[in-house]
Amino acid sequence: MKDLEERIIADGHVLPGNILLVDGFLNQGLDVELFDAMAGVWYRYFADEQITKVMTIEASGIAIAAMVAKKFSVPALFAKKYDTVNLTSDRHQSSVYSYTKEKEYTIAVSKRLLKEDDRVLIVDDFLANGCALKGLIDLVESANASVAGIGIAIEKSFQEGPELIRSRGFKLCSLAKIVSLEEGEIIFAEADA
Amino acid sequence: MKDLEERIIADGHVLPGNILLVDGFLNQGLDVELFDAMAGVWYRYFADEQITKVMTIEASGIAIAAMVAKKFSVPALFAKKYDTVNLTSDRHQSSVYSYTKEKEYTIAVSKRLLKEDDRVLIVDDFLANGCALKGLIDLVESANASVAGIGIAIEKSFQEGPELIRSRGFKLCSLAKIVSLEEGEIIFAEADA
Repeated sequence: MKDLEERIIADGHVLPGNILLVDGFLNQGLDVELFDAMAGVWYRYFADEQITKVMTIEASGIAIAAMVAKKFSVPALFAKKYDTVNLTSDRHQSSVYSYTKEKEYTIAVSKRLLKEDDRVLIVDDFLANGCALKGLIDLVESANASVAGIGIAIEKSFQEGPELIRSRGFKLCSLAKIVSLEEGEIIFAEADA
Repeated sequence: MKDLEERIIADGHVLPGNILLVDGFLNQGLDVELFDAMAGVWYRYFADEQITKVMTIEASGIAIAAMVAKKFSVPALFAKKYDTVNLTSDRHQSSVYSYTKEKEYTIAVSKRLLKEDDRVLIVDDFLANGCALKGLIDLVESANASVAGIGIAIEKSFQEGPELIRSRGFKLCSLAKIVSLEEGEIIFAEADA
């Protein structure tokens, strides 16, 4: 998606350790006009998938999920993160390893919010190692619901997550694919939409 | 706001300790059509306030803030929560006491995202003791920006927050005002809009 790539070039900051900082418009400051345009692209891409829910994980995916859900006229929901595993039986839960925080945490969603006949579009701001996304897929599958598609704003194609997800056969639509951040230069591959 | 009150009656659950559970549509499951209607009410209520940013705190306010920002055609932003105070000088920060978790935490927002000439509409899902809202107001004032208005979905009028905020002269618009949850019965006062 050309608008997103241009915005990343204009306002993104590359930090040491292949970190791309986009908090000015994507995951703290929220450019909702851009999100609406992104939602429109996914709406066309997943038009035939009979989406019934849009799901993400707190916190940075929530605004994107809300705008996408509005486009599809379906509810959104988000998985919550917990440091402990002291959870009740009314929630689906999964374990996620965070490389940034170097620890395991639990994600969970109320069983009332995900049903067997749900066709879920998972969305998130980033896909890198794929740990959080794998956790979200686990939650959907725990509910015997279907992952009907995955929409990612920025894919770090040089990390293992994207290949891992595609090799499992999921329909993944990344709007910006970054193949390199070496020496602070942002290099894109052709995006999915 | 009649739609919101009716939804609270239909899908809210009163738990011991005056807790109102609305995770089916407001703060985990997200009814974005309802949020869009709420955004429309606030858009009319704060029409003359020259809003330049819509601000909230992670996580449950984010989807609401995104829908409201879209209505005003301005960016949204959210304050992040931190367990520690190990923060850098490029962020405004404030301290918030959580009664539920019985501990102090830090909230912060990048200085790049709040400017002196910003007129900020603060929104959140709940207003009860007012601690989180007071923290958000602190952040806006740290940036020498203005709090142009405050939009709350559900106000617990029997707690101290609403009176505290109104007595400081802020323009507060609560869409549902609950005066009692005694014996599991939800009693509303007339809302602001």
